[in-house]
Amino acid sequence: MSSTFQAAVVHNFGDELTIDEVEIPQPGPGEALVKLISSGVCHTDLHAAEGDWPVKPKLPLIPGHEGVGTVVSVGEGVDDLREGDLVGNAWLGSACGNCQYCRSGWETLCEEQGNSGYATDGSFGEYMLVNAKYAARIPEGSDPYEVAPVLCAGVTVYKGLKETEVRPGEWVVISGIGGLGHLAVQYAVAMGMRVAAVDVADDKLALAKKHGAEVTVNAFAADPAETIQKEIGGAHGVLVTAVHPDAFGQAINMTRRKGTIVFNGLPPGEFPAPIFDIVLKRLTIRGSIVGTRKDMEEALDFYARGMIHPTYHTRELGEINQIFDEMHHAKIDGRVVIKYQ
Amino acid sequence: MSSTFQAAVVHNFGDELTIDEVEIPQPGPGEALVKLISSGVCHTDLHAAEGDWPVKPKLPLIPGHEGVGTVVSVGEGVDDLREGDLVGNAWLGSACGNCQYCRSGWETLCEEQGNSGYATDGSFGEYMLVNAKYAARIPEGSDPYEVAPVLCAGVTVYKGLKETEVRPGEWVVISGIGGLGHLAVQYAVAMGMRVAAVDVADDKLALAKKHGAEVTVNAFAADPAETIQKEIGGAHGVLVTAVHPDAFGQAINMTRRKGTIVFNGLPPGEFPAPIFDIVLKRLTIRGSIVGTRKDMEEALDFYARGMIHPTYHTRELGEINQIFDEMHHAKIDGRVVIKYQ
Amino acid sequence: MSSTFQAAVVHNFGDELTIDEVEIPQPGPGEALVKLISSGVCHTDLHAAEGDWPVKPKLPLIPGHEGVGTVVSVGEGVDDLREGDLVGNAWLGSACGNCQYCRSGWETLCEEQGNSGYATDGSFGEYMLVNAKYAARIPEGSDPYEVAPVLCAGVTVYKGLKETEVRPGEWVVISGIGGLGHLAVQYAVAMGMRVAAVDVADDKLALAKKHGAEVTVNAFAADPAETIQKEIGGAHGVLVTAVHPDAFGQAINMTRRKGTIVFNGLPPGEFPAPIFDIVLKRLTIRGSIVGTRKDMEEALDFYARGMIHPTYHTRELGEINQIFDEMHHAKIDGRVVIKYQ
Amino acid sequence: MSSTFQAAVVHNFGDELTIDEVEIPQPGPGEALVKLISSGVCHTDLHAAEGDWPVKPKLPLIPGHEGVGTVVSVGEGVDDLREGDLVGNAWLGSACGNCQYCRSGWETLCEEQGNSGYATDGSFGEYMLVNAKYAARIPEGSDPYEVAPVLCAGVTVYKGLKETEVRPGEWVVISGIGGLGHLAVQYAVAMGMRVAAVDVADDKLALAKKHGAEVTVNAFAADPAETIQKEIGGAHGVLVTAVHPDAFGQAINMTRRKGTIVFNGLPPGEFPAPIFDIVLKRLTIRGSIVGTRKDMEEALDFYARGMIHPTYHTRELGEINQIFDEMHHAKIDGRVVIKYQ
Repeated sequence: MSSTFQAAVVHNFGDELTIDEVEIPQPGPGEALVKLISSGVCHTDLHAAEGDWPVKPKLPLIPGHEGVGTVVSVGEGVDDLREGDLVGNAWLGSACGNCQYCRSGWETLCEEQGNSGYATDGSFGEYMLVNAKYAARIPEGSDPYEVAPVLCAGVTVYKGLKETEVRPGEWVVISGIGGLGHLAVQYAVAMGMRVAAVDVADDKLALAKKHGAEVTVNAFAADPAETIQKEIGGAHGVLVTAVHPDAFGQAINMTRRKGTIVFNGLPPGEFPAPIFDIVLKRLTIRGSIVGTRKDMEEALDFYARGMIHPTYHTRELGEINQIFDEMHHAKIDGRVVIKYQ
Repeated sequence: MSSTFQAAVVHNFGDELTIDEVEIPQPGPGEALVKLISSGVCHTDLHAAEGDWPVKPKLPLIPGHEGVGTVVSVGEGVDDLREGDLVGNAWLGSACGNCQYCRSGWETLCEEQGNSGYATDGSFGEYMLVNAKYAARIPEGSDPYEVAPVLCAGVTVYKGLKETEVRPGEWVVISGIGGLGHLAVQYAVAMGMRVAAVDVADDKLALAKKHGAEVTVNAFAADPAETIQKEIGGAHGVLVTAVHPDAFGQAINMTRRKGTIVFNGLPPGEFPAPIFDIVLKRLTIRGSIVGTRKDMEEALDFYARGMIHPTYHTRELGEINQIFDEMHHAKIDGRVVIKYQ
Repeated sequence: MSSTFQAAVVHNFGDELTIDEVEIPQPGPGEALVKLISSGVCHTDLHAAEGDWPVKPKLPLIPGHEGVGTVVSVGEGVDDLREGDLVGNAWLGSACGNCQYCRSGWETLCEEQGNSGYATDGSFGEYMLVNAKYAARIPEGSDPYEVAPVLCAGVTVYKGLKETEVRPGEWVVISGIGGLGHLAVQYAVAMGMRVAAVDVADDKLALAKKHGAEVTVNAFAADPAETIQKEIGGAHGVLVTAVHPDAFGQAINMTRRKGTIVFNGLPPGEFPAPIFDIVLKRLTIRGSIVGTRKDMEEALDFYARGMIHPTYHTRELGEINQIFDEMHHAKIDGRVVIKYQ
Repeated sequence: MSSTFQAAVVHNFGDELTIDEVEIPQPGPGEALVKLISSGVCHTDLHAAEGDWPVKPKLPLIPGHEGVGTVVSVGEGVDDLREGDLVGNAWLGSACGNCQYCRSGWETLCEEQGNSGYATDGSFGEYMLVNAKYAARIPEGSDPYEVAPVLCAGVTVYKGLKETEVRPGEWVVISGIGGLGHLAVQYAVAMGMRVAAVDVADDKLALAKKHGAEVTVNAFAADPAETIQKEIGGAHGVLVTAVHPDAFGQAINMTRRKGTIVFNGLPPGEFPAPIFDIVLKRLTIRGSIVGTRKDMEEALDFYARGMIHPTYHTRELGEINQIFDEMHHAKIDGRVVIKYQ
């Protein structure tokens, strides 16, 4: 085994990433070293590389938090992972285990969490370190390329759907059928919900239909709120994966009374919330971000049972700057997965 | 008993109300005729008289939905109210009993509800009709003047507090210590919550303190969000009774992660909701309007146990136009209660 | 239209029912007269006919609360049912609409409820009266024979499953795959749950498997609790439809920690609850009886979407005593449905 | 500082404890060494000393899990505890942090938990080790003797009350006003509940009244279920801290429909659960054991705010066998607290 590996590295925010030869790290206490097979590429990686958010990532940085690979060695005190185990890294790379949020099943809100491919190096390289307690266990029989997008996109929409509080048999609208939304349709169907899909592209809506959406609305062709009200009497919940500001206001008008609107994306800016309607209809608006280890285990379990099939395309690590460029211009269909092996 | 009574009547939206001599109605099936002792005056009455909202009230209209009085006769089929019973009317004057909301304990969302002093004549007169199934039962021993504000302001904040999902021992911020807010402080304390109060008037904050608020912040003197974060580490919930648009944005910044912000007022317009914060901190924003009959019974029970003391001033019905004028100019302290007997 | 109809009537508890010629009643205020097409036969009808329970039914009595038929006329004040509408009666024939339970979405607990085929005449005859507000609306396109068992057996297990609080993707055990249990398997699958089935008959277990159960256990061939623990690590919830006392104790040992056991049947007697296990494992044991109008609407909606297929056999009303006899000896497979037209 | 300390040690189950001179241990990674000021004595300590439960404690054993003391040194990696900090040990001495229960806020159900004074040495000695992540932080200003019983008895009843799901303003019955029950009354009152107390001793009931119980019933003088039904229309919840088997059956009959009965004690044996009533009334029966670190923090916070005052008597460590003997014969009033300093 060579002592170095190839990785895509951010040296300065906004610059192109360079493919560097990097020293293979040794797993410290509680860590495992993973040889990667694949890694999904997420919008968050782009934000990290450009330093878009208030709290900046470390520099230099290897981004990536949808990585799947095989454990090659473990550090001190790791007794529940072994060489050969298939694991993944996740945005929630670690948490303190001791704060009010960690103690109550809400580790995604831990203020000391360490995010993979942001606070620590991630999966855009042939090797990575993971915290053994927080690494995702990939179920036996998983396709290592197909499963990668479940690690962030999948768990994010799965948790978002739980947060809508829509029960089996009730209606949920998935607003935006892209990388997140097309998985949301599949999770919602698997969770027994009835699904309506809203997008501006007919091929996305056709994909939603294929995955079980009963109603589809092209927001360019018809008023989506009006259509949803007419067709299903308003939704019990709406999951907004779209990032266009208009989507937020529309979502509020798609619900029936007592409905819940969950925001799953992280667009900058604000949206104008209509107070009168929110009060009169007793609406609930909620944000949801990734998921806990338990959510991850559940999201992966739905995948392992054959109910979730991400649309993805494999690419080479060397194409990372081109991939980011396509992302910028919204040219990606489904998810891109980097193939290492 | 005379065949007519005096009432304050709206003939045209925006005009002054006139004190008219009105025919005493006969209770129809399921109704009771009530001789009033008192009636609170609510902001909603002002909105009704001015025709401010999209769905207009009937005209001519006798407003009023915080009325307390004695049953003098009952219509056909009424077997659970008797002459002499002390009852109140409520904003939720009736509901269909059969829709998805009525069937699931959410009658306040019934789309066929009849609102007192809006769709039907209310308590701004010496007599009123009530739907026997929806009339509030006033607990024995109640002071008929003091209890009046509980019928709308009280139940509204009580329900709003329930909707914050703040549990006993957790922190709630009451934003705005007016007619609603000063009752909210008392209900929150009675419900075992820890209370912080925010207002722009020191006398209101002193009142909040008297009723058990542990922390008070004058929003003119200090940044309320910053102060709340520093003093209590952020609130678990915020109840916004203030109607100034700024209060909504501030409320969002007062919570800790996973906090819930409940809007209890009905100001027109929108407020800019910061998507990034809502998602990252997993915030919940929710509207809440009045309460069900069950909420009312509970809100009155807290009053009956001596835990709730509305600040109020009695006035004469003939002063109604002046009262509305004072309301317009925010000159009312606590609640105004009209005294009939 | 003749002025009389044929009905199976209980004159004395424990006696055989007689087929009598009965006067067709006129619908009073709020009622509708229904010409029956079909009626399921439920164990509760047998208990009614034998006067088994502490509170006795009216006598003479026409039992039956899974009746499906067409509205032929409506009484005063009925504005939401019309001649020709397809409706059903339900065990919850009426409720007060005004008590603490009715007000909070728990009308099945109303202490003044009127039960169909018990407090009022039911569906074991060619005509019946229903309370228009409580009659079930049968979705368009329903098979009137197949849908009948949904009206009691279906809604009962659907509500019971909700009460287990098992979420999509979690495991539920259905204990007893008879008239209730075979529907429970189908509802659980439609609700996104993973299903294990326990019974003592291999053909019942085969039926459960056909409907989507992933694990089946013959309680005569293997220890069911041990098997469930080994195969799935313990269930998140157990729905007990079996009436054998042993089933209750077994159910408790089938759950994982924090599991919920819901009892859906009404066998007489007690079962020995092991306090130490309940406390140490934080178990929840809960009873569940039929469902509200909202539960009914939801249960029927799952049926209308083609996800629920009761196993049933049609019989003639004249065979009622023989049907009861077969019920006594547990010779019924699935549900019996009486065919009127 | 001497290198040994005095501790009460169990060498054989059922034998008297001996006061031994024991080597002061060194804190390992993640641990802290604590010099004790006080320790409550709990029934569980007696069970441990006698080896009553299926899973036996270590031997030799220093029992005790209501210990309060000062940190004197910390092991490697401990960065959130410092010399001089006031901490307590708790029954939940450690948990894995990684199982389905730890990940979802239910660490009290962790199957790899380590219990203080059972799997590890506890607080019946002048020094003890604690796991720094799981040690309770004692709020500033606490009386170190009075606070000790909060560490097990307090958090147990506080969590049990949460598990009744009784909301502020609703009725809870506390059955048994001993070491646990007298704290339960105080917590319930602080949580805004209305309290009825049931016991067989008038002085205990007087204590309950002093702490805010509105209704008290002596179960020797009157039928407690009947009395509770008559006085308050049935309770919304019942917390059973009594260990007499009769208490469990009575508790079921004390609730109104939809009520919840929580068992907080760990008596051996079974109790006969009446299936018909549980189903018809939709009752919920639930076990509850100690509390999580978050529950502990909350329970201590109520104490720190002056709302909880355990009745206790200080004794010397050397009296431990006599204390156990008095416990056996139910001669203890409130809690016994051993005083070290």
